[in-house]
Amino acid sequence: MTGGLAPLSQTFHEEARDRLRAKASQADLDGLLLLRASNLAYATGLFLSENERPMGVWVPVDGAPILMLPDLERENAEGTGIEDLRFYNEYPGEHPAELWMLDQIGPKSVGVDRLEARFLDAAREHCTRLDLTDHAIAVRARKQPEEIALTIEAAQYADLFLRHLLDTGGDIIADGGTEADLMAACLAHARGALLDTHKANFAGTPMGITASVHSGPRAALPHGAVLERRPQPGETLLAGIGASLGGYHAESGITLVVGEMSADHRSVMSAMAACDAAGAAACAAGKTCEEVNVAALAELRSAGLGDTIRHRIGHGMGLDGQEAPWLATGDATHVADGMVFSNEPGVYRPGRDGYRTINTMIVTETGVTIPSRMQADTPIDARVLAI
Amino acid sequence: MTGGLAPLSQTFHEEARDRLRAKASQADLDGLLLLRASNLAYATGLFLSENERPMGVWVPVDGAPILMLPDLERENAEGTGIEDLRFYNEYPGEHPAELWMLDQIGPKSVGVDRLEARFLDAAREHCTRLDLTDHAIAVRARKQPEEIALTIEAAQYADLFLRHLLDTGGDIIADGGTEADLMAACLAHARGALLDTHKANFAGTPMGITASVHSGPRAALPHGAVLERRPQPGETLLAGIGASLGGYHAESGITLVVGEMSADHRSVMSAMAACDAAGAAACAAGKTCEEVNVAALAELRSAGLGDTIRHRIGHGMGLDGQEAPWLATGDATHVADGMVFSNEPGVYRPGRDGYRTINTMIVTETGVTIPSRMQADTPIDARVLAI
Repeated sequence: MTGGLAPLSQTFHEEARDRLRAKASQADLDGLLLLRASNLAYATGLFLSENERPMGVWVPVDGAPILMLPDLERENAEGTGIEDLRFYNEYPGEHPAELWMLDQIGPKSVGVDRLEARFLDAAREHCTRLDLTDHAIAVRARKQPEEIALTIEAAQYADLFLRHLLDTGGDIIADGGTEADLMAACLAHARGALLDTHKANFAGTPMGITASVHSGPRAALPHGAVLERRPQPGETLLAGIGASLGGYHAESGITLVVGEMSADHRSVMSAMAACDAAGAAACAAGKTCEEVNVAALAELRSAGLGDTIRHRIGHGMGLDGQEAPWLATGDATHVADGMVFSNEPGVYRPGRDGYRTINTMIVTETGVTIPSRMQADTPIDARVLAI
Repeated sequence: MTGGLAPLSQTFHEEARDRLRAKASQADLDGLLLLRASNLAYATGLFLSENERPMGVWVPVDGAPILMLPDLERENAEGTGIEDLRFYNEYPGEHPAELWMLDQIGPKSVGVDRLEARFLDAAREHCTRLDLTDHAIAVRARKQPEEIALTIEAAQYADLFLRHLLDTGGDIIADGGTEADLMAACLAHARGALLDTHKANFAGTPMGITASVHSGPRAALPHGAVLERRPQPGETLLAGIGASLGGYHAESGITLVVGEMSADHRSVMSAMAACDAAGAAACAAGKTCEEVNVAALAELRSAGLGDTIRHRIGHGMGLDGQEAPWLATGDATHVADGMVFSNEPGVYRPGRDGYRTINTMIVTETGVTIPSRMQADTPIDARVLAI
């Protein structure tokens, strides 16, 4: 754990706006109107929760940015260094705030990251050209060193949850503990450490741990709920953890066996390790995102587990816990240095068991580094909760 | 607290679909495509978190509904009683899932609750007519008795937080406690009671408590963060609590004075009580939502507090914590029985102090009932944390 880290600086966000300007210029636009909360955070350093009241920043190729918020957020808008602040009264108001923002911008060629379809016809009348591409997420995909540092640190706390689970989970289950009990104990441990180290420096920026722990036949649900269920001997226990610091997300996840590991468990876990390695290798080789997905999942298919695949191999991470690019069919983005992805081999056998591991991958100029260390530090045969 | 309550039944959701069908028919549509998570929950009973993978249900005027989800949610789709289940592989995929859904529906006149603008031109080609109105939220605005029962129960747990704050907050502050300490103690108390009473019956449906406690000059921020700050004598402490049960939300909120109450505190609080009463009376009289806002805030204006107003008087509540109709400028909906609103007078004096109270209002055939009881049970002079 590294104390002394700080939230991204005002300088970082000024440079982020420069990158956004360059991107807008490449797309032959006068600027970008950013309405998604994570894009707004990237461009301004303001972390505001999305709600029905639209919030936006106009980042023009030439000239000063304009921050446009509901009156309610007036004080929160201070301290960004953006001088042109404009406020609308309330939602819904007489006039949609998105169209008010376009009025403030004036007749320009505008890239907007997201817009509700019901405003499209009117929005087109406000602009000389309206480009509905999220150009900001393409900029955000290539992380800067300051962003990577937060990602690496966040990953440590996801690992901390898992190590505590491995160290104490067997005893908790032996004492009659449930999934919810495992969750509560490990969450308190990891969250406590995160807050102790970083609470003072990171006040006002999002930080936290989210976790899912589920076992037995329900481990075969990719999106299962954590229940008051006691894991049973011979079952798999699937733990997927997300951690965030200064708004940046990382993940780590492992599958453990309750009691003794069988040859079947070991065989599935070995195929998943091969899948994870193939995903990382394909990223290091600069394949496209969809090629990484195909290359990774091929390892599960060749192990006879093709029918158990229920989801893509991974997703981008940054200011959103799940963001583009997507390591999935339909995303032809070339993997490049500075990108951060999850690598999540999953094997789901309904009515029987389920498995998922998660690594965070940081793509560098020379390969891939893995800040989540739980899998590397825990050989397959050690992934056991003795009870 | 009422044990024995249960989540909404399959019959409730069948009847909800009948109401949605009737609404679609009135709008001369063949049916409604619901993509918003809360609309999907209303129509199906499935509580799925919104993420990048679109999820939808087609509720046709004639014929059977179609539930359309990512493959990942396959098992979660069972148990709704909807027989026509269709799955797409993954996000992003070769083809946007929203357009795939419109393909599944076929060429019809479709009401869709929300759509990204970048899909609009293509979506129009898939339909004989595309109506971009959220018809479902208009149906949801009039709650049924089963929904009201959950709202009433949820409100008790918001009050429980506040009562614990009033009972123990003075001692916590006297012992050096901060906003975060107050928050942790009261949250544990209220959440513990909520889970003890309802966890078993309500597994798998959303339930929880969200809270905000902030003090001193920062109480003047309508959207402030909870900090490691010790409230000081003479300051106001603003507590706003949301609670949810079975997916239904209620709120309660109060402003307390640390130490001794001054004549100025009392005067502001009296004006806010008049504002709250005027809001409830305007709802009971069946005014429009924007008229309710004007009538309520007029009480603050007539008390000389017009400059301190920073937000509308309230919002609808139900499956979303904040939902239409809005007690605000721009919403001409007539208040009618079965509607549930927050009533949130707020006075914000930057650099000095802030105040907000919150009631939940349930509109009935004969008036308004208030399930949040903290304000009614706590005379203004008793809203003090002695230290």
